[in-house]
Amino acid sequence: MEKINSNQNARVKAWAKLQTKKGRQASQTYLLDGWHLVQEAIHSDGKIRAIIATEDQYELHQDELPLGVPVFVIYDDIAKKLSDLVTPQGIFAEVSLPNFNRAPKYIHEGAWLFLDAIQDPGNVGTMVRTADAAGFAGVVFGQGSVDPYSPKAVRAMQGSQFHLQLANGDLHEWIPEFVRNEFQVYGTQLNPEATNIFEIIPAQNFALVMGNEGQGMATDLAEMTNQNLYIPLKGHAESLNVGVAAGVAMFTLNH
Amino acid sequence: MEKINSNQNARVKAWAKLQTKKGRQASQTYLLDGWHLVQEAIHSDGKIRAIIATEDQYELHQDELPLGVPVFVIYDDIAKKLSDLVTPQGIFAEVSLPNFNRAPKYIHEGAWLFLDAIQDPGNVGTMVRTADAAGFAGVVFGQGSVDPYSPKAVRAMQGSQFHLQLANGDLHEWIPEFVRNEFQVYGTQLNPEATNIFEIIPAQNFALVMGNEGQGMATDLAEMTNQNLYIPLKGHAESLNVGVAAGVAMFTLNH
Repeated sequence: MEKINSNQNARVKAWAKLQTKKGRQASQTYLLDGWHLVQEAIHSDGKIRAIIATEDQYELHQDELPLGVPVFVIYDDIAKKLSDLVTPQGIFAEVSLPNFNRAPKYIHEGAWLFLDAIQDPGNVGTMVRTADAAGFAGVVFGQGSVDPYSPKAVRAMQGSQFHLQLANGDLHEWIPEFVRNEFQVYGTQLNPEATNIFEIIPAQNFALVMGNEGQGMATDLAEMTNQNLYIPLKGHAESLNVGVAAGVAMFTLNH
Repeated sequence: MEKINSNQNARVKAWAKLQTKKGRQASQTYLLDGWHLVQEAIHSDGKIRAIIATEDQYELHQDELPLGVPVFVIYDDIAKKLSDLVTPQGIFAEVSLPNFNRAPKYIHEGAWLFLDAIQDPGNVGTMVRTADAAGFAGVVFGQGSVDPYSPKAVRAMQGSQFHLQLANGDLHEWIPEFVRNEFQVYGTQLNPEATNIFEIIPAQNFALVMGNEGQGMATDLAEMTNQNLYIPLKGHAESLNVGVAAGVAMFTLNH
């Protein structure tokens, strides 16, 4: 256990940079903020590089910390510098980014969620959490999707990143590869000419593509799928929040 | 059309107060921020008391504004004072709060969403939007639920407050009244001893109760329902975001 007293400490500066994508890319790590998330990493064999805690938090949790992981005890002011919350709990874990490179060619089963240019970190995080809850095997972040390791996205994931496979990929490659591997690939559209999602018998192995908040799914991607689905809206709302739409679609296809 | 040049103008001060619940209660109005929401109010016969716009926004939309509603043209700085957004669009409508008092006794049909102590304004707003999309007749805000007219909740509702009935009420009264009126009242629980929501045949007229983000639905309310349902979770996530859970439940019961 090492004590850090200064905001100007080199480690503190490095951890603070993990709030930006650039910082995370450089160190290939990100930060979990709060005991609930740290605990998820411990229980899920997340690759923990360091535990960072205020004196109080260290005393509270020291018996539950994994052996062999460096622990740094910090002042409350430093906790505020590392967190984007107004009142951080005061315990963090620095965790390795997973290897995001996977070849779709070698994937042959399960339910997969493909994200086409989802912009909002809260939406991305919520969709990963929901995919986990609906028993999906993995989530693929297509080009133009926001980084899922920002503090806001990590908070919304609630530790689900440790429970399923995550990959970055160009959906122009992933969709045809999945079709070739005999997955059913379902696009989603706000278009009643697509197929009513409540009227199909879902395939065992499939991918579900969710589109951008404003534009929906890209037209060229919609042309590559096996089938495009829509959620029929009965009231006067023009659309659903994309995180809610993804939840309805995932549980309808996989329950 | 009246021009307002000063931040210190009495009207500006009154509008700025609408960001707080106290201010909204005092004036019995709230603010719609941005053209999309203003337009919803115009098309839905929302009771508009005033349109407030920057010079640019007034020029852009003057032909679409309703006749007989006072219009105030403001400086960009005033727009920032009225909005909680960093870069507000610069057009607002001050709208009457609806009459929230309804007697459950006189309600005999439709699908209704009851909210038990939902805390987050974004969640409450999203649930109203989803209820609209799923063809629900109304939403009842139980005791301890956050005010649905904060700027954040209004943004998440996306105008759906004009499409369905909203009411404040004590669920300890609403649930028994609905049961008496032959609604099926479904509670929701994170408990696998409840009934799997995908295995029931939903009633035509029903109420769905969604519980607090942390605690779930209050135990005494769960004892008053006809049946309590759960969404089976297949992966390792402990729970769903409450807005997502409400979406899955509403579309499963009503599509």
